[in-house]
Amino acid sequence: MTIEYDQLPTNAANFVALTPLSFLQRTADIYPQRESLIYNDRRYTWSQTRARCTRIASSIASRGLGKNDTVSVFAFNTPEMFEAHFAVPMSGAVLNTINTRLDALTVSYIIDHGEAKLFIVDRQLWPVLEAALETSTLQPEIIIIDDPDATEKPSLPTEREFSYYEDLVEQGDETFVWRQPEDEWQALSLNYTSGTTGRPKGVVYHHRGSYLMSMGTVVSWALPQHPRYLYTVPMFHCNGWGHAWTMTAVAGTIICMRAFAPKLLFDLVDEHKVTHFGGAPIILNMLANAPKSDQKTFGRTIQVMTAGAPPPSKVLESMTQFGFNIMHVYGLTESYGHILQSSAQESWKKESIETQAELKSRQGVRFAMTEAVEVVNPDTGKSVPADAETVGEIMIRGNTTMKGYLKDKEATQNAFRDGWFVSGDLAVIHPDGYIQIKDRAKDIIISGGENISSVEIEAILYKHLAVGEAAVVALADDKWGEVPCAFVELKVGCDATETELIAFCTNHMARFKRPKRVIFGDLPKTATGKIQKNILREAAKALPVS
Amino acid sequence: MTIEYDQLPTNAANFVALTPLSFLQRTADIYPQRESLIYNDRRYTWSQTRARCTRIASSIASRGLGKNDTVSVFAFNTPEMFEAHFAVPMSGAVLNTINTRLDALTVSYIIDHGEAKLFIVDRQLWPVLEAALETSTLQPEIIIIDDPDATEKPSLPTEREFSYYEDLVEQGDETFVWRQPEDEWQALSLNYTSGTTGRPKGVVYHHRGSYLMSMGTVVSWALPQHPRYLYTVPMFHCNGWGHAWTMTAVAGTIICMRAFAPKLLFDLVDEHKVTHFGGAPIILNMLANAPKSDQKTFGRTIQVMTAGAPPPSKVLESMTQFGFNIMHVYGLTESYGHILQSSAQESWKKESIETQAELKSRQGVRFAMTEAVEVVNPDTGKSVPADAETVGEIMIRGNTTMKGYLKDKEATQNAFRDGWFVSGDLAVIHPDGYIQIKDRAKDIIISGGENISSVEIEAILYKHLAVGEAAVVALADDKWGEVPCAFVELKVGCDATETELIAFCTNHMARFKRPKRVIFGDLPKTATGKIQKNILREAAKALPVS
Repeated sequence: MTIEYDQLPTNAANFVALTPLSFLQRTADIYPQRESLIYNDRRYTWSQTRARCTRIASSIASRGLGKNDTVSVFAFNTPEMFEAHFAVPMSGAVLNTINTRLDALTVSYIIDHGEAKLFIVDRQLWPVLEAALETSTLQPEIIIIDDPDATEKPSLPTEREFSYYEDLVEQGDETFVWRQPEDEWQALSLNYTSGTTGRPKGVVYHHRGSYLMSMGTVVSWALPQHPRYLYTVPMFHCNGWGHAWTMTAVAGTIICMRAFAPKLLFDLVDEHKVTHFGGAPIILNMLANAPKSDQKTFGRTIQVMTAGAPPPSKVLESMTQFGFNIMHVYGLTESYGHILQSSAQESWKKESIETQAELKSRQGVRFAMTEAVEVVNPDTGKSVPADAETVGEIMIRGNTTMKGYLKDKEATQNAFRDGWFVSGDLAVIHPDGYIQIKDRAKDIIISGGENISSVEIEAILYKHLAVGEAAVVALADDKWGEVPCAFVELKVGCDATETELIAFCTNHMARFKRPKRVIFGDLPKTATGKIQKNILREAAKALPVS
Repeated sequence: MTIEYDQLPTNAANFVALTPLSFLQRTADIYPQRESLIYNDRRYTWSQTRARCTRIASSIASRGLGKNDTVSVFAFNTPEMFEAHFAVPMSGAVLNTINTRLDALTVSYIIDHGEAKLFIVDRQLWPVLEAALETSTLQPEIIIIDDPDATEKPSLPTEREFSYYEDLVEQGDETFVWRQPEDEWQALSLNYTSGTTGRPKGVVYHHRGSYLMSMGTVVSWALPQHPRYLYTVPMFHCNGWGHAWTMTAVAGTIICMRAFAPKLLFDLVDEHKVTHFGGAPIILNMLANAPKSDQKTFGRTIQVMTAGAPPPSKVLESMTQFGFNIMHVYGLTESYGHILQSSAQESWKKESIETQAELKSRQGVRFAMTEAVEVVNPDTGKSVPADAETVGEIMIRGNTTMKGYLKDKEATQNAFRDGWFVSGDLAVIHPDGYIQIKDRAKDIIISGGENISSVEIEAILYKHLAVGEAAVVALADDKWGEVPCAFVELKVGCDATETELIAFCTNHMARFKRPKRVIFGDLPKTATGKIQKNILREAAKALPVS
């Protein structure tokens, strides 16, 4: 006789698809009058935020859109961008936020590849979108966010018909019944990453993952109820590290920041009693180097999550004067953002400030929702010893790992190996189990928190008639952390100057991606003809820091 | 063309079965040297706890046990009981903890119904188990927990062979590979509840539910990292409200309490800098009424979760002197414990202490992992208005709802209706959305935090030759909250005294379940012959409080 444990199937009462949409429902039920969003003079309560999101969701649904339809959002960190994180999936659709610094050609590619059915854009970004639509095959309906506080308000062509975001709110139906996913594996969002291959890849998130990302972040960052969170991290990056959903789960108040400036951050932290914020190390660097007259101290501790690159010890130290307690985390777009954290140990307290900063700059140990992270020898497939010396590749397993890359079977297959997601980042493990990245995925340059694919830049350089061979690597930069540096071998009998090639790149890619230096000469190669980027990286180190 | 969002299936890297077992793996990896458990002079680190649990799991597995095999544990809140919450499911088996106050016949029923393959018992409870084994069909292998700190150490029969818990540890294999569930719907534990029908029902928990219970508890109780948790709640109640797993998720330190006593609690809170504990209102009541010389104050706030009955305002008020901040919660065995909480609102601060206590005594609003709770008119199936007056039945939906009742299709079917779990508790909703129970499931008496089924007592009474009809209801009691009170109609020509019937019950059930009063007379009935318990409840109210 077999006992009947397996004869109790799931039903609608005991198995509900995990989705971050539940957080808004619950928080608006319990704290309807608490402030949800603050943006300059605009303030909303959770009751209002739910009503607005429901109305927008109904407006999207009324256009015939729903499950597996892509709605793109090309916008800054304003309330509309926050609302989109609920409103779009509440209609059943997939939220595709787009990096505001991208160039028209890439945006055009994303529109077609992601099959955008609706495109919500901040008016300031209209010129980029207009250019993108010139080359895109698809011509989605355009919804304009017309932010009165925008500094740039380009005029809109009169011959075109636009809908406005606030019209979607007004025309929407507040009694619309949300389309909660029936399957938690359903696509929630689509995030394009530059990846390592030059062409943007569409990383697909599932509802289950984002729900668990939020829960695990609360556990491992020890978030209290009602944090006051300043949204400095662009929401187009891994859905703003998932914090739009996480802060809703803990009924926080979100303070929006359309554009980052050190003085504004200090003022907002002060005025709105901010308790938490996040940002790439470059943000911290800018805060540390801001004019004294712009800086403020607060007489209290503010929790700060930083990611993108290890924060330099000097920066970590300087943050303490403001009461900023830095938690360094590590993750990728493919892992929904942070999955490792430099959790402080009791024993660190007796170390010097310098040693503590060094310990904190390691990528660390896994978050609560991360099932497993190992550093593996790519040749043997075995874990490297925890000796702080043997380098291996970071492998990730857990429920905050993407579904895969949209319409790219090959890349998806390559990303998963033997039950692991292959990060492409190289690291060591310290004897205490903390992971430290030694050499990041060789083709990626992280500049001001933005991933730049060297392969993408190389592809452009190759289009220049004089370029024979090109290789781009990272060059250390005081301000940006890293900037691209190009090594170029000219075709025989051809000529080009550094200025000329930089200008050529600027014309063909987002400005922030252009190489800041171009070095001419023969490129070192392996016996099989592969360019030895490790040697070029060494050569770049010898260049004067800009 | 359909976009390919649905063509990215799950794989081993991005979909891992949710299980609370992951918490131990992670915490032992990251905080191997932090203290996990404290019990009198015994102390363990997380590294040691993982090693011990792994060894016990391997010993269980080496007996040929695994998935869907039941391992029963009949024990107090000692480290072994905590370890069983990991070790048993790590072997793949199902953890069945049994109420230490149960009588031999009920234990015998549970052994047979739950099909126990292995039975771990605290030596003090051996006499109950020995009697149970006399009537049970199954004769599982017995493992003795021989706690040196037990106050009662009955001798064990020499003619029987016993294994000892520490032998399982010693003989176990520390390199044993845990059997993580492949399916998060797999049975994790089996908790018998007296329910409303007299016979214990086996509530089956799934791995998914307990994982989410822990995550949601951290979010909604705002648990910090490394709480110091005093385990006063018996772990046989809803797996100790899930806190064995929850406290592991946040790398807490668990202080074990074999038997509750007010002085001991004050001493332990002081000595071990306890930050959190839980207990039924009767526990709080005993603390409030303890001799002044036993009481202590701490000059800090200690978070206390209470459940089982609304804590009286007077008790809530008196707790403030000790710095105990009480969070009142509500739940059932079927919902893994707490699913509603009396979350304090900002606006309550301006209310009087009395009003605040009243507000806090409501069952409240849902926890983060609870998807929906409604109060429904059982006749119409519609939600009652939030007017604080209209009574309806509490209906629950969410991932911390049981799989069902083991081997009881009918009860399982009755428990689920129209996509809801039917709680059987009657309540109102206040205009602010807070739920308050007005009349609990009519057949249940809650005495000292224990559920007692009136139907079970009635069934015993009916076995007495003189009893014609019997009905048992709750009688208010200063110490226990409620005690059973029996109304009996004697058979014509028969006679029996109150003392005689109470003695008869005591011989046939756990002592705590016996009626404290027996009232003789005709029983009020409806036109269709159903006994009107509501009238008896009113009659019980008129009795002098004991």
